[in-house]
Amino acid sequence: MPILHQMQMSGNCYKVRLCARQTGVDLTLKNYGLHDGSTRTPAFLTFNANGRVPLLQLEDGRLLPESGAILFYLSQGTTLQPDSGWEQAQMLQWMFFEQYSHEPYIAVARFWLHFAKPEALETKRHLVADWHAKGNAALAVMESHLLGHDWFAGSRYSIADIALYGYTHSAAEGGFELSRYPAVSAWLTRVAAEPNHIDLDTRW
Amino acid sequence: MPILHQMQMSGNCYKVRLCARQTGVDLTLKNYGLHDGSTRTPAFLTFNANGRVPLLQLEDGRLLPESGAILFYLSQGTTLQPDSGWEQAQMLQWMFFEQYSHEPYIAVARFWLHFAKPEALETKRHLVADWHAKGNAALAVMESHLLGHDWFAGSRYSIADIALYGYTHSAAEGGFELSRYPAVSAWLTRVAAEPNHIDLDTRW
Repeated sequence: MPILHQMQMSGNCYKVRLCARQTGVDLTLKNYGLHDGSTRTPAFLTFNANGRVPLLQLEDGRLLPESGAILFYLSQGTTLQPDSGWEQAQMLQWMFFEQYSHEPYIAVARFWLHFAKPEALETKRHLVADWHAKGNAALAVMESHLLGHDWFAGSRYSIADIALYGYTHSAAEGGFELSRYPAVSAWLTRVAAEPNHIDLDTRW
Repeated sequence: MPILHQMQMSGNCYKVRLCARQTGVDLTLKNYGLHDGSTRTPAFLTFNANGRVPLLQLEDGRLLPESGAILFYLSQGTTLQPDSGWEQAQMLQWMFFEQYSHEPYIAVARFWLHFAKPEALETKRHLVADWHAKGNAALAVMESHLLGHDWFAGSRYSIADIALYGYTHSAAEGGFELSRYPAVSAWLTRVAAEPNHIDLDTRW
C-alpha cells in the first residue's frame, strides 16, 4: 500500500487524501508535526530534498512530492481528469494558478493566523494586509470563472476542483470572508456533495 | 496562427516561445510592457482575469493562461513529454516545484535587481536576502537531482527542463552564482544544445 507522508491539517495533504478516497486508492499515513521541523531532518531530506509534505511513497520505494503532481498521478485514467487535451490543459491552468496566486496568500494567512503561536504571528503581522489583498484577488478570479461555469475544467468535477477546494474551503481560518463570493460558496457546496467526499478533519 | 500575449524579457514567456519553436508551432506575438500595467487594463482582464502573461490565444478565440499549462498543451503528443504516466507525474512535480519554490525567488530577484528602477528597488531591498536564501535552496534541490540524472523527468529532455531553464539560465541577473552549482551548469549547457534552441533575446 502506498505511504502518504503528510500533516493532517495541511490543505495540500488534504487534497491528496480526498483524491485518493475518490479514486479508490488506499494509503498508509505517516504523520509529521506542524511545528517540529520533522520534514527538514537529514533523514527526511533523503526522501524529498525540498523538505516538504505531501510526499507519496509507492510500494516499490518510488517517491513523488508536490500535491499537484500526486493528484495528477492518482487520477490518471479516472473521471477526475477531463478527456480532451484542451480540458486537461485547463485543469493544469487552475492547478498552477492555485499554487502560484492562491496558496501563497490564502494558505499562508491560515497558517499564521490560525495555527502559529501568537509570538510567531507578531513577526509576520505586517504581511497580513498583503496576504489578504492578494488572496482576495485570487478568490475574485475564481468567482469570475464560476459565474459562468459549474467546475474549473471541462464539464465535470476534476482534480482542478480538488486543488482549489483544499485551501478555499478553510479560507475563513485565514481571515477571508467567503460570503463575499457567492459563486465560490455555491461551488464549495457542490464539491462537498460529490461521492466519497471527506472533510479535512477525517482520519483515514 | 495562435497569438502569444507576452513580454520578451519574462522567463515565463520565454519558456513558451522555446517550447513552440521546438514543437514546430508558429505564433504571432503580441507584446506588453514590463512597467506600464498593460496586463491589468480592463480590456486585458477580459482575456485573463488574473492579469498576467503569458496568455495563449488560439485561432478560434480560446484562451489559456499559466506558462506550465501552455507548455503542457503545446507539447502533447510530442517527445517533449515523457511516455509513461509515472514520468509525466515527475515532469509535473518539477514544474510545480519551479512555480512554487524557484520562480518566486529567482525570477523575482532578477526582476527587482535587473529590471526595476533604482528607486523602486529601494522599497524591496530588505527582501533581497530572503530571495537569495530561498532561491539558493531551490538551486541546491536541482543540483541534488542533477548529480544523478541528466534530465528532470524520465530519460530525455522534456517541458520540465524548459520550465526550469527559463529562470535558471538567467539567475545571475538576480545575483545568483551559478558556478556554485556545477551539475546545474552542465545541465544548462545540455539544454542549450538541444535542436531548435533559441535564446531569451531571440525575436520570433
